[in-house]
Amino acid sequence: MQFAEIAKLNMPSAVRDMKPEELKELADAVRAGIIETVSKNGGHLAFSLGCVELTVAMLKVLDLEKDHVIWDVGHQSYAYKILTDRAEAFETLRKKDGISGFPKPRESRYDAYATGHSGNAVSAAFGMAAADAAKGSDAKTVAVIGDASFSNGMVFEALNHLGNSKKNLIIILNDNGRSIAKNHGAFARYLLRTRTRMSYYNTKKRVERFFKAFGVFGKPFLAFLNWIKRLLKAMLLPTTLFESLGVDYLGPIDGHNIDDTVAVLKRACRMNKPVLVHVTTVKGKGYEPAATEPEGFHGVSGFDVETGKMNGGTAESFSAAFGETLTALAESDERICAVTAAMASGTGLSRFREKFPERFYDVGIAEEHGVSFCCGLAAEGMKPVFAVYSAFLQRAYDQLLIEAAFQQLPVVFAVDRAGIVGEDGETHQGLFDAAYLTQIPNMTVYAPAFRDELGEMLKSALALDTPSAVRYPRGGEGEKPEGYAYTGAAYDYRAGGDVLAVTYGRIFSELRAAVDGEKLPVSVLKLNRIKPLSIPDAALKYKTIVFFEEGIKTGGIAEQTLTKLTEAGWRGRFVICAVDDGFVPHSTVSEALADCGLDRAGIAAKLKELVSAGDNDENADNPERQRAEHGRGGNRGPIVLRRGRRSNDGAVPRFRRGR
Amino acid sequence: MQFAEIAKLNMPSAVRDMKPEELKELADAVRAGIIETVSKNGGHLAFSLGCVELTVAMLKVLDLEKDHVIWDVGHQSYAYKILTDRAEAFETLRKKDGISGFPKPRESRYDAYATGHSGNAVSAAFGMAAADAAKGSDAKTVAVIGDASFSNGMVFEALNHLGNSKKNLIIILNDNGRSIAKNHGAFARYLLRTRTRMSYYNTKKRVERFFKAFGVFGKPFLAFLNWIKRLLKAMLLPTTLFESLGVDYLGPIDGHNIDDTVAVLKRACRMNKPVLVHVTTVKGKGYEPAATEPEGFHGVSGFDVETGKMNGGTAESFSAAFGETLTALAESDERICAVTAAMASGTGLSRFREKFPERFYDVGIAEEHGVSFCCGLAAEGMKPVFAVYSAFLQRAYDQLLIEAAFQQLPVVFAVDRAGIVGEDGETHQGLFDAAYLTQIPNMTVYAPAFRDELGEMLKSALALDTPSAVRYPRGGEGEKPEGYAYTGAAYDYRAGGDVLAVTYGRIFSELRAAVDGEKLPVSVLKLNRIKPLSIPDAALKYKTIVFFEEGIKTGGIAEQTLTKLTEAGWRGRFVICAVDDGFVPHSTVSEALADCGLDRAGIAAKLKELVSAGDNDENADNPERQRAEHGRGGNRGPIVLRRGRRSNDGAVPRFRRGR
Repeated sequence: MQFAEIAKLNMPSAVRDMKPEELKELADAVRAGIIETVSKNGGHLAFSLGCVELTVAMLKVLDLEKDHVIWDVGHQSYAYKILTDRAEAFETLRKKDGISGFPKPRESRYDAYATGHSGNAVSAAFGMAAADAAKGSDAKTVAVIGDASFSNGMVFEALNHLGNSKKNLIIILNDNGRSIAKNHGAFARYLLRTRTRMSYYNTKKRVERFFKAFGVFGKPFLAFLNWIKRLLKAMLLPTTLFESLGVDYLGPIDGHNIDDTVAVLKRACRMNKPVLVHVTTVKGKGYEPAATEPEGFHGVSGFDVETGKMNGGTAESFSAAFGETLTALAESDERICAVTAAMASGTGLSRFREKFPERFYDVGIAEEHGVSFCCGLAAEGMKPVFAVYSAFLQRAYDQLLIEAAFQQLPVVFAVDRAGIVGEDGETHQGLFDAAYLTQIPNMTVYAPAFRDELGEMLKSALALDTPSAVRYPRGGEGEKPEGYAYTGAAYDYRAGGDVLAVTYGRIFSELRAAVDGEKLPVSVLKLNRIKPLSIPDAALKYKTIVFFEEGIKTGGIAEQTLTKLTEAGWRGRFVICAVDDGFVPHSTVSEALADCGLDRAGIAAKLKELVSAGDNDENADNPERQRAEHGRGGNRGPIVLRRGRRSNDGAVPRFRRGR
Repeated sequence: MQFAEIAKLNMPSAVRDMKPEELKELADAVRAGIIETVSKNGGHLAFSLGCVELTVAMLKVLDLEKDHVIWDVGHQSYAYKILTDRAEAFETLRKKDGISGFPKPRESRYDAYATGHSGNAVSAAFGMAAADAAKGSDAKTVAVIGDASFSNGMVFEALNHLGNSKKNLIIILNDNGRSIAKNHGAFARYLLRTRTRMSYYNTKKRVERFFKAFGVFGKPFLAFLNWIKRLLKAMLLPTTLFESLGVDYLGPIDGHNIDDTVAVLKRACRMNKPVLVHVTTVKGKGYEPAATEPEGFHGVSGFDVETGKMNGGTAESFSAAFGETLTALAESDERICAVTAAMASGTGLSRFREKFPERFYDVGIAEEHGVSFCCGLAAEGMKPVFAVYSAFLQRAYDQLLIEAAFQQLPVVFAVDRAGIVGEDGETHQGLFDAAYLTQIPNMTVYAPAFRDELGEMLKSALALDTPSAVRYPRGGEGEKPEGYAYTGAAYDYRAGGDVLAVTYGRIFSELRAAVDGEKLPVSVLKLNRIKPLSIPDAALKYKTIVFFEEGIKTGGIAEQTLTKLTEAGWRGRFVICAVDDGFVPHSTVSEALADCGLDRAGIAAKLKELVSAGDNDENADNPERQRAEHGRGGNRGPIVLRRGRRSNDGAVPRFRRGR
């Protein structure tokens, strides 16, 4: 079967009628299609290839017109997308207005739940199963969750709540024996033991058979053996960790054997209560380069199918600069520790891990624990640096607040992927950290625009005796002004006009290109440190100030700057260009910046508008004038924040829409 | 021994030299002191009484000049506070400038870590143990954690990371067989099975002895029995859930038997690796009313020691109004579900639980799972209402953002204890929710000032098809303006002056009392809904606007209001009275509001200042004037946010200070 033929079938229901041999051919065609598209568009390859047969088996057993499938994290759902209603559209994977790399209910009604972060699939699935039970529906809910996600505590919170519930819930533990980075946690070792010993169900039956036989002829030892027998039975009952927590267990089975997987899933469906199906799979299965080096093929930017050679490189990235600087600093300060939540490679810590293994900690996909662990290290005099993606640090808001900040512990947060990240889309954008980190008391927050500035700021952060964050974007730096070196809280790049443009971080380079390229009469101020906020006195003389922010507007640095200016007596026109009460869908970083008006062209257009309007705004402080202006905006009623950007949520109209 | 004698001993080291009988007398004296003080000051009684003997045993074994103790949640640490350096000061428990009800390193160097929320003790303790190991110290770190906290996923994240570490870490599982509300989760059942079966270590030895003997004379069955023997050994090794996760297990032991507890703790110390000691205790031990009804004696406001009769009542509280309204609404709408994270009684849901048990979900102390679970319910058409304390919802910032808000799922968050909560102090204040909930796209946030308004807003929230929050304070309402009924997004209480005062929530009553009581020429606007933000046009005519906010200033509603006004062309003096970049220590709610300038007196003083300054501020928009004013403030340099309020962190100078 060719990949192109899949789109002609009536999916997903056609899978239910396929014979074993057809299922195998279908899986091969899906695998070929995934390799082809990801080699061009980039994406999460290794996980996706590991799930192909499992997905085919699930679609053979489930009735997706009724049943629900939730993919934890979701980057392994490519086969599912292809086999539900997106075979034809799959070539647009991760492209602007194309298929998302993660499940998305607005993209297809077969995507039951939007995921992106780790560990929440069982929770959401239990909620859906409980709702179905309340409605009297016999629909099944299936949560597919990787072994690495079990390092996230939410899974245990859900299992604990699930308890001995009778809800129709199947948890598929997709055990590929290694998380994104190698997971050496206790749960990983537990699974390894489970996998390597003989199949659990066979063992249990064999022991039961033996004791039945033994009971007949073993009369001489009866008293003692009966005790042993009871003991054994008691011990056999909750043999697995999952059974200890009240969830039935089936497995382990080979997730690449479609027939076996179909058989076990059918059995799980018949049980009509929560059951965990332990499936073992191989990351990168069916594509040699990915199977050999799955960590390298976790998230890729594109590659040559024949050779497996990756496109592009990351040597010039902020992440690499962070890793190099921290490793160098750790040479001369034994107190420096590096902590990651399963993202050693992504955050640039591979070299630190090699060089200082005793001061490197991978806590698993567990940002909450990670922050508390860092606080413990800091409380006893170490200098922990937690390298973490902006979107994932959202998980630890509470720990940042009442452990790091309240106790004023000197933990440094190296916040990678701050701002727009591009192709991974809404769930992965780092649009909130600037706002929420600065609302936390006692924090110091730096926002480098350049790689060497990141290094200097990291040194400043490590010298503090209070918590701090250095936030920097995915990818590399823009062109640096000649002779620029980080010194203070703000950088007065250019004084040359009636309008002052303020920004911080990466888009300083866009702003600079706009002003210099178009020779605009605009002054430019770059904030180096966004908490404590420090605005030079010179800013007070401008009648118009515009703030470009690659982040959420509400509660962000622009609004805080307006407050500081107003408190200092400034009165003028203040314009904020930021992400206003919405999420930014997947596309390239450049496309997303352009959509938000934060690329060079958008910034230049806004500045031109303000420069030419400048003279007309001098009387802005006249109350009569104010009301007239307000009216002119077409809004005579109360001032109302714009609600959600529904046009901007990445819906792809040609697919059937979910809720 | 009398309680007063404890202060005369050289604590905590004196405990190390005591004989068994003395330890028992000490425990009795401590228990009497706790009952006496909590009956007057209020506090967490039942948990504290359950930990007295355990604390004495720990202090007998540990060397607190070197070792560290972290109390998870921390409200059970009263005996520890008394027996370290706070016996004399204990009568000031929970009073302004007195002893905190939670561990606090700035209060005493024996408080190794500040806690307050649940589940982080093992994480922080592991961090401290890792730091000690790096420093070559042989100090022990002990984390004491209740069985209910095991419903929080952070514990499993920490156990997973801990793995087969060799760090000096002792986890004391204080198992009192019931969490705050009865915990029916899988882990609770697991512990029940563990407690009721014979002691694990005895069993293991007995089986090993049997097989040794059996191996000698049982030759006829050799082949098969050897297989069984290997199997049994393999199965005996990880008998407990904890051992499955790589942590040694000792117990269960009776935590009220000091001698036994001392013996097991000594053994745990000798093991020099992570070990979990399972201790069973009785909540409310030694005080009959608390032992009989521990849920009622969890957190109390004071009571009569003789009769156990509680002071005060909660019938008039916002929580009660919420519970009544929701229960009434659920009568006519079968889709309404109530969800709590182990706070059914505290959030007013006891009646709902009785009346609609099939639509009531207690998820355990697991706010993250709770939010995802609600999202799952909502995705399948239910109307979940998650009743949760403001400070605890901080745990679920990420789930609010990328599950509820991104998917626009109609979950209602009933955010209790919003604003200042009083005696529980810094970790429990609800000062951040207004800021962080409003920065989340697609949210609608209501802030009732009155109980019946809460009911109406809850109805509005339930009618939305997007996520929403209704946030309300601990305790009861202020006096309601005659004839007031909630209708729109804002309430124009009074137009009568050159200064406009804006606020939301409870302190509207303080503002009203200030303006009406002192007959001030000030207009008053109450915001009913703080997102989307809606400011009436009438506000634009004022030259001075002052915003009183019972919450954090940075990113809060005041700053957002200034932005909306400025964007509508308003120019004027804008003054924000809020909690500025700091935490608010424990005291009564009234004392804390006064300290923040948010009570009637503080508000009146600020308004008088603004009213009399009004005429002097007319030229505020003149740039020359602005700079002069700015200079007049004594700050000729950049505008810098004030850093942490160290004077306001509740330090009690007479105690030895920690770090």
